[in-house]
Amino acid sequence: MPNLLICRDHLDFLLYDMLESESLTQRERYADHSRDTFNAAIDAAQRLASEHFAPHNRFSDENEPEFDGVAVKTLPEIGEAVRAFARGGFLAATHDYELGGMQLPVTVSQSCLALFRAANVGTSAYCFLTSANANLIRKFGTAAQKERFLPPLLEGRWLGTMAITEPDAGSSVPDLRSTATPLPDGRYAIKGQKIFISGGDHDISENIVHLVLARVPGARGLSLFIVPKLRVDSEGRAGESNDVALAGLIHKMGYRGTTSTMLSFGENDGCIGELIGEPGQGLQCMFTMMNEARIGVGMGATMLAYTAYLHALAYAKDRRQGRLPGVKNRDTQPVPIIEHADVRRMLLTQKAYVEGALALCLVAARLADDEGTHPNLQQREDAALLLSLLIPVVKSWPARFGLAANDLAIQVHGGYGYTREYPVEQFYRDNRLNALHEGTHGIQAMDLLSRKAGMHGGRALEHLHQRVMLTTRAAKASGHSQLAEHAAALDLSWRELRETTDVLLNAVEKNAGEGSANAAYYLDLFGHNVIGWIWLWQAIVAHSQMQTRPHLEKFFLGKISTCTWFFQTELALTMPVHRLLRATEHSALNVDVDLL
Amino acid sequence: MPNLLICRDHLDFLLYDMLESESLTQRERYADHSRDTFNAAIDAAQRLASEHFAPHNRFSDENEPEFDGVAVKTLPEIGEAVRAFARGGFLAATHDYELGGMQLPVTVSQSCLALFRAANVGTSAYCFLTSANANLIRKFGTAAQKERFLPPLLEGRWLGTMAITEPDAGSSVPDLRSTATPLPDGRYAIKGQKIFISGGDHDISENIVHLVLARVPGARGLSLFIVPKLRVDSEGRAGESNDVALAGLIHKMGYRGTTSTMLSFGENDGCIGELIGEPGQGLQCMFTMMNEARIGVGMGATMLAYTAYLHALAYAKDRRQGRLPGVKNRDTQPVPIIEHADVRRMLLTQKAYVEGALALCLVAARLADDEGTHPNLQQREDAALLLSLLIPVVKSWPARFGLAANDLAIQVHGGYGYTREYPVEQFYRDNRLNALHEGTHGIQAMDLLSRKAGMHGGRALEHLHQRVMLTTRAAKASGHSQLAEHAAALDLSWRELRETTDVLLNAVEKNAGEGSANAAYYLDLFGHNVIGWIWLWQAIVAHSQMQTRPHLEKFFLGKISTCTWFFQTELALTMPVHRLLRATEHSALNVDVDLL
Repeated sequence: MPNLLICRDHLDFLLYDMLESESLTQRERYADHSRDTFNAAIDAAQRLASEHFAPHNRFSDENEPEFDGVAVKTLPEIGEAVRAFARGGFLAATHDYELGGMQLPVTVSQSCLALFRAANVGTSAYCFLTSANANLIRKFGTAAQKERFLPPLLEGRWLGTMAITEPDAGSSVPDLRSTATPLPDGRYAIKGQKIFISGGDHDISENIVHLVLARVPGARGLSLFIVPKLRVDSEGRAGESNDVALAGLIHKMGYRGTTSTMLSFGENDGCIGELIGEPGQGLQCMFTMMNEARIGVGMGATMLAYTAYLHALAYAKDRRQGRLPGVKNRDTQPVPIIEHADVRRMLLTQKAYVEGALALCLVAARLADDEGTHPNLQQREDAALLLSLLIPVVKSWPARFGLAANDLAIQVHGGYGYTREYPVEQFYRDNRLNALHEGTHGIQAMDLLSRKAGMHGGRALEHLHQRVMLTTRAAKASGHSQLAEHAAALDLSWRELRETTDVLLNAVEKNAGEGSANAAYYLDLFGHNVIGWIWLWQAIVAHSQMQTRPHLEKFFLGKISTCTWFFQTELALTMPVHRLLRATEHSALNVDVDLL
Repeated sequence: MPNLLICRDHLDFLLYDMLESESLTQRERYADHSRDTFNAAIDAAQRLASEHFAPHNRFSDENEPEFDGVAVKTLPEIGEAVRAFARGGFLAATHDYELGGMQLPVTVSQSCLALFRAANVGTSAYCFLTSANANLIRKFGTAAQKERFLPPLLEGRWLGTMAITEPDAGSSVPDLRSTATPLPDGRYAIKGQKIFISGGDHDISENIVHLVLARVPGARGLSLFIVPKLRVDSEGRAGESNDVALAGLIHKMGYRGTTSTMLSFGENDGCIGELIGEPGQGLQCMFTMMNEARIGVGMGATMLAYTAYLHALAYAKDRRQGRLPGVKNRDTQPVPIIEHADVRRMLLTQKAYVEGALALCLVAARLADDEGTHPNLQQREDAALLLSLLIPVVKSWPARFGLAANDLAIQVHGGYGYTREYPVEQFYRDNRLNALHEGTHGIQAMDLLSRKAGMHGGRALEHLHQRVMLTTRAAKASGHSQLAEHAAALDLSWRELRETTDVLLNAVEKNAGEGSANAAYYLDLFGHNVIGWIWLWQAIVAHSQMQTRPHLEKFFLGKISTCTWFFQTELALTMPVHRLLRATEHSALNVDVDLL
């Protein structure tokens, strides 16, 4: 079977040609690494994903976890895959060597994880949640906590969750009501309901470590607590039940292999948690993981769309139907449907979305690397600023346009694409989640417009614009007239974006409601301008590589053609959105509720 | 429970204020009818749909028909609903009184059927297929065929299907390979495979009447055959098996209550069919049903989006979360989420899509009425021409933008919308089919650009444009300055559309491939221009009604606001598409397959 998880040429191009990831090995933390060790990790991920994750993707969709009143039963394949992932070292991919980690840069570890997301997003969710959980404990736990919890988590013997959302609070953190009441021994009695807890119950691991956001009565702010399903003694042994009850499984459109749970903590007053991090700083602890979590969602959305694109491409080359326009002779053989221009249009659109989204996510991962390990302090700060601005786009653009790509992958398959006999159907359902979790599209949009776009007096946006202009200058100097044209279009588009941003920020300052009314359009507009930059960047690199690597000529030409397509049909269509956003009277802000 | 199938005020507005359907009662065929009898039929449909269709919509999604190797088992609720539908007379809603019909205009019967589609699209599919099947037999069958097949079909004792598609042919009719070999007694031995046959097997009815498209060896063209599952003798009695075998059930993303089947005809050389209609004219017979079928798909897509909108609206008024921007006091009650402008934006978008789509479908139904029963011959021809042009839009626009509305209905629900605990999840999956069946989006787009837009020297398009200008003139004369502004915008947009059409038709004439490359964008652009007309029309009527019916003021203001929103945010955004389509070099036509 061909590799339908990712195009490796493309990944190599992004990692080594565009992002020059080999240069990371000059940093102390990655000194032991080389392009070969990076590739070895990616190869191992590809092998594991193909052998242990992809094969049961459909089966676990069709056979959801079930609660028989006593325990949640999951497919054995899921547990086996999670353990293989742990054995492969991927739970600790970015951790220090002394913690059993691979000490990989975020750019490379995200490339590895991408393959698991493409192969089986439901099963890999258990792995990623555990990884995030372990990262938090590593960062904020006491030495004793790390000693007791990290080894079983990183070995995959225990799995982890994040328990934030509550039934009546949703995205509204101030309304969270779970409580943590101090006990004489310094621990806390936990009480409350949590909802949408992924991996909140299952039979995959010996224990489940919940990180629970709760409120200490009378104290300011929310605190974070380690609340295992089975109590863990001072030696790190799991024992008796900790009064964490499954209140119910939630049945979803997709991501069906991942249990989504309602959990009840301390129904019988027997749930004990231990504080992690500073009291009242729970949200801030969680926030340190937010960039990583949101890159993860963007990457998940990207890869579900990416693998669907590869499936659609393979199908379009194989499936024969109809004849080219003008061919009257019905005795001729039907042509492969990729010969039909409308099918090529759908594939080109998918390519523009998925390769643009993957490049964006890896640019974000590289910024995370630079924030963490760049030798120059100013560069670290700049990277942090840029990443912070880009995060709502990284989270949202792939979710929205990745789903659009998934939709087209179905359409390429015709009626077959609507059947559960073809994998594109599941990828579409799975991907619908990504505009909802980890902050909905609307939440991201408000984060971008009401917080990020104007932060530090607009310095982050100015900084991003400078980066864009570096790229447009390079395109103009490339000697490629089409790329120079696109560069001029991008410069113009960004000037418009800056102007539109100013108008909106003024409006928001006068009336905070304007943020909510216009943010979703602004997010999409902003995203297309970012992806325009990302595509031009890819095209310049492709153009410069073409001379020296003629055997990849078609690959590089594909990059340039897709860039051109994105500029001519996607970016060009955004122009009237500026007018729309600057004329704030259009807004949904003032529509009377009774008129709906 | 409130009525979440449709807003009856809106339906009344469309039927009686906009389309002036009462005037139909002046036509001889509808002389016995009145607004009261129309409403009585709609009331009856609403009651039946609410009582017999809606209650098992989720249950039949979760419990698909199953094949145990002998028979296909469906839920008893489905059969009961189908029989209630038949008893209610809806299978023969438009038929003559002497056939047991209600002799309803298409406009009114489509309004009735809309309610069943909203309540349970999977169950109602059996009814609609049977109705279409019976309509064909009524139109083309011999007296003897009508006598044997119509009564059991119209009573719902037998159900019907349409068997066209084959595994290797898809939309490519010339490649259909099923054969019908003449037998000495004048009947035919049928042999072949059919795929995606909805309702192709089940245990709902005593017999299933397939209408099968097949080729008589050596003869020109395709012919149509009545091929029952159980043979029917000359007295109309169903008897022995007719060698129609279920080769397999197809499992779908949605529409799960409707069996989708692969059927094998004549595997043991024992399948007998009888010709219906003229030999070699099978496709033409089918084509006479095509307008009705495509209005049906548009209506189905509309109603899945419509009911989802009503669910989202109810949820948004009920669910409390967060506070308005600027409210710092966390002790205040959270507000209903409809107070958030971003949620109102999503609801307004849905309203614009679903009410625009429903109006479009009913305009099409009215054109079908005028084609069939208008007393003036010229008007009949004009209606036929207009309907023919609009059909690809009626089929496709609701499928595409209805699905977008379904997507927003989920988004309004947040994470809950992704769960199968809320109905919007299923509506979304159900609606994804509508861009695929009864001619994919791409097929419709090519029908519009390569056939309809230029037919009769562009007379249909000219005619539609004249109709649009009647509306814009009325808007300018309305004394409502905003509507006059929209009218000017619509006139401009239509002039652009005419120009773009000319450019494209020229390009297609030079190179037929240009049709395929540009058609999908053209279809969407054309659709938005049609919906702009439909919205302006609604707004004028609302404005004129407001003076005399002040108790419905909010309803009418809602119409005008939504019209304004559609012009400012949807139609305005289409302007660059004209440039895109006129610069044909952008097209996917010339992308090398190897670059994808």
